[in-house]
Amino acid sequence: MAGFGRTIHCMLITAVISFTLGAYYQNYDVLRRLCYVIDDDPYAFHIKDKLYGTVGLLQNLAKHGFLEFSKYLRFFKNNVGRLKANESYSCLPRIMKYGFPGMEDLRVYDDFVVSYDRRNRVARWVYEHLQTSSIFNTVGSRRMAEYKADLGIPSDFRVDTTDYKDSGYDKGHLAASGNHKSKQSHCNDTFYLTNIAPQVGEGFNRGCWQKLEAYVRDLCRRYGSVFVCTGPLYLPRKSDTDRWYVEYEVFGPKAIAVPTHFFKVIIVESKLPGGLPYMEAYVMPNTELDEKTDLRSFLCDIGVVESASDLRKEEKQNQ
Amino acid sequence: MAGFGRTIHCMLITAVISFTLGAYYQNYDVLRRLCYVIDDDPYAFHIKDKLYGTVGLLQNLAKHGFLEFSKYLRFFKNNVGRLKANESYSCLPRIMKYGFPGMEDLRVYDDFVVSYDRRNRVARWVYEHLQTSSIFNTVGSRRMAEYKADLGIPSDFRVDTTDYKDSGYDKGHLAASGNHKSKQSHCNDTFYLTNIAPQVGEGFNRGCWQKLEAYVRDLCRRYGSVFVCTGPLYLPRKSDTDRWYVEYEVFGPKAIAVPTHFFKVIIVESKLPGGLPYMEAYVMPNTELDEKTDLRSFLCDIGVVESASDLRKEEKQNQ
Repeated sequence: MAGFGRTIHCMLITAVISFTLGAYYQNYDVLRRLCYVIDDDPYAFHIKDKLYGTVGLLQNLAKHGFLEFSKYLRFFKNNVGRLKANESYSCLPRIMKYGFPGMEDLRVYDDFVVSYDRRNRVARWVYEHLQTSSIFNTVGSRRMAEYKADLGIPSDFRVDTTDYKDSGYDKGHLAASGNHKSKQSHCNDTFYLTNIAPQVGEGFNRGCWQKLEAYVRDLCRRYGSVFVCTGPLYLPRKSDTDRWYVEYEVFGPKAIAVPTHFFKVIIVESKLPGGLPYMEAYVMPNTELDEKTDLRSFLCDIGVVESASDLRKEEKQNQ
Repeated sequence: MAGFGRTIHCMLITAVISFTLGAYYQNYDVLRRLCYVIDDDPYAFHIKDKLYGTVGLLQNLAKHGFLEFSKYLRFFKNNVGRLKANESYSCLPRIMKYGFPGMEDLRVYDDFVVSYDRRNRVARWVYEHLQTSSIFNTVGSRRMAEYKADLGIPSDFRVDTTDYKDSGYDKGHLAASGNHKSKQSHCNDTFYLTNIAPQVGEGFNRGCWQKLEAYVRDLCRRYGSVFVCTGPLYLPRKSDTDRWYVEYEVFGPKAIAVPTHFFKVIIVESKLPGGLPYMEAYVMPNTELDEKTDLRSFLCDIGVVESASDLRKEEKQNQ
């Protein structure tokens, strides 16, 4: 009888331990697979906190944040191989550190992120993170790069290189190619037509806008880490009849919109430990501007840019 | 020795069984929680197939589809109580049966779904599912309803009732109030200003557009189940200088856009078992139209509507 009692005892203990181990293993497995989904899909990235909430036992591990757990997984990935070959979403946590202005039609490249506006066939916004390594480098050169269509956009909304022909507008970069020199592939990516908008050449793309891009790079040289969000605006103007109208040109068979203005929101990170980032916004009309105009005259309240574009306000982001 | 051997034997069997049970239990738990997340969040709904892929052991169960599993869970939910009181996303699988035209700024009401265009302060599209119960009912009445702002939209992009004052435009319903009569709350929801667009009153909202709405209800009476996607268009027109321009009015301090056209895409489900749904699209200019105009003259290729609006093409949806 003592033997039987001991057997029952041992079985009970084994049952509890094995049950826990089974649950733990399964939980680990789910969390690992969730990480792949989050890594590969911006939608999942957006709701990652909720997703992690679905996993119980290992929740504490997840609480340390996606980044840490992701790093922890890197070893596994590198050694076991990935479920998918595509690594391109791994830049998201770095570039989108200050949150997504929106989640519409994201195109994630290796060194910048684009939200594409299907209706206007121009980006909604382009987000970049400038570091000194990406600027003071001679690896990437725009001489090797060529404009190309992004085949990830459905054909109806996709812009091809031929569409800009005879339009009279420059193929203007939103994420400037000079900001992505650490790899040739990064520089090449800026030539995707999703990152291109029709800009007035003389006096804008080759004038004041270029000066603004140089100013951003200068900020990066001085402070080391700069985030830039660039995009088009379609601002209304008053007609003779005292009513307000939005009016912008569209060209080519795809009806590509010519924005009336362009904006840049700049976030400069402080070099001091714990220092707050500094923000400023610029809005420039897409017309021939006097090159002698002081850049400061294009300074604009960030709230105005947010409200004129469809950038999400922080109040929404935090919900 | 025989007793010891038997003990080891029993322990091994117990260990295997308990480990499996533990894993199974944990898996079931994760799947159950994932269902809550999917039920509560349109983003999660969009990637539900990927999410289910993260769960291993119970994957077969999930393969039977979200709807079935959701039903299976309903018993559990109703008896145990929900994690959140908000039930409003439960209509999504029914209304969005044919997929989302886009995932931008979704507002999910009890009987229709809105994608809100922050930039224009007008919906991008409104999706409804009409059943005979929602039309031939006298519970919901528009006399009891009042126009109201949707406080879920950030204040910068939110339209208030005062904003339409002196604009000269009707507060036109996108999801018609007459389509949502099965509950007073459903009818009230159609008066949220997210479902309202500035429409020319005489000859449009109170003319041809109304006729189109009546025609949709007639289809519903005849076929029992009709899906309708309604939205604004901002179409370009040729100027005197032979270039194309998009031009539309904006009014009020919030700069609410007045669409140049409105579209309705209609999906009529077949009454025959296994019968394919029938689709058609209408596009009407937002101007005073002759009420005698035949509705068929506004028929339009669905591809044209998709390409002129930013509705996602199927090729993208299936990726």
